[in-house]
Amino acid sequence: MRLGHRVPRDQRVSTHLALAARALGASKMFYSGMRDPEFEESVEKVRRNWGGNFKLEYIVDPIDFVRRVKSMGYMIIHLTMYGIPLNHILDELLKHEKFLVIVGGEKVPSQYFYISDYNVAIGSQPHSEISALAIFLDRIFQGVELDFQFSGGIFRVVNAKKGKYPINIKD
Amino acid sequence: MRLGHRVPRDQRVSTHLALAARALGASKMFYSGMRDPEFEESVEKVRRNWGGNFKLEYIVDPIDFVRRVKSMGYMIIHLTMYGIPLNHILDELLKHEKFLVIVGGEKVPSQYFYISDYNVAIGSQPHSEISALAIFLDRIFQGVELDFQFSGGIFRVVNAKKGKYPINIKD
Repeated sequence: MRLGHRVPRDQRVSTHLALAARALGASKMFYSGMRDPEFEESVEKVRRNWGGNFKLEYIVDPIDFVRRVKSMGYMIIHLTMYGIPLNHILDELLKHEKFLVIVGGEKVPSQYFYISDYNVAIGSQPHSEISALAIFLDRIFQGVELDFQFSGGIFRVVNAKKGKYPINIKD
Repeated sequence: MRLGHRVPRDQRVSTHLALAARALGASKMFYSGMRDPEFEESVEKVRRNWGGNFKLEYIVDPIDFVRRVKSMGYMIIHLTMYGIPLNHILDELLKHEKFLVIVGGEKVPSQYFYISDYNVAIGSQPHSEISALAIFLDRIFQGVELDFQFSGGIFRVVNAKKGKYPINIKD
């Protein structure tokens, strides 16, 4: 759940965030702030080309949405450098199976700090919601997300030590 | 080493990349492409406020620079989804101590694929150089980078389960 998306300022950062979420195992992304068809289309285009079922959905009232998701049994995680260090809380988090991960937004209203089950810090230095989410997902999925396969799409990568081998599987 | 920085298009993404590099244990960042005093100042400002010795340096001739760094004994790592999956190569990488990590740039010239000791894939789906670098650094430092302390600066974070506690240590 990306809060407070702004057009055009956040378009690339939100797109990187969505692609990181998708590539690292999240099933869906929600966003609030300014509705942005261009952002939605860029994420949908990656799904069409590269497969999988990742979806992006716009949310009009994000605090109400978070309340509803919480009532459905999801752990609400807010990534913030003012939270509990990830290394101290990971074992506790791994007892759970369903997560909604909230990332700001320039300025996150304090109600998100309170509604969250855990405010989690990925280090205690300012960095990026993209890097914070990446490390969070990598730890939650314990590295296996890097080997996930995506069904459908029209491109695959053939990994190789040297050289570039993108493959169009429809050729 | 961020290749091919463009103004204004890459300013926020490159800044997020620099902050992720700094927060997750890199000692220095280099960039090529368009020289960008605003980008340099934004990174320097974070260092002044939050401490540490992280530096950002502009490089005029990046391929020559990579050659020189390689001759100094650094492992040259190019992060690309067309590389060797990180999970397959990490043990090998952990035998080394000094790394220069290259990230694109919209289109990375093929010479970087060849000059690199390893092209490393953080998953085989498109995502973000920011998320890729974050996971790479987290694995190389094996998680301890999240507990690194930065000396100097004027802000510290006090981590807490609920609520926000930024502390200005000069108060």
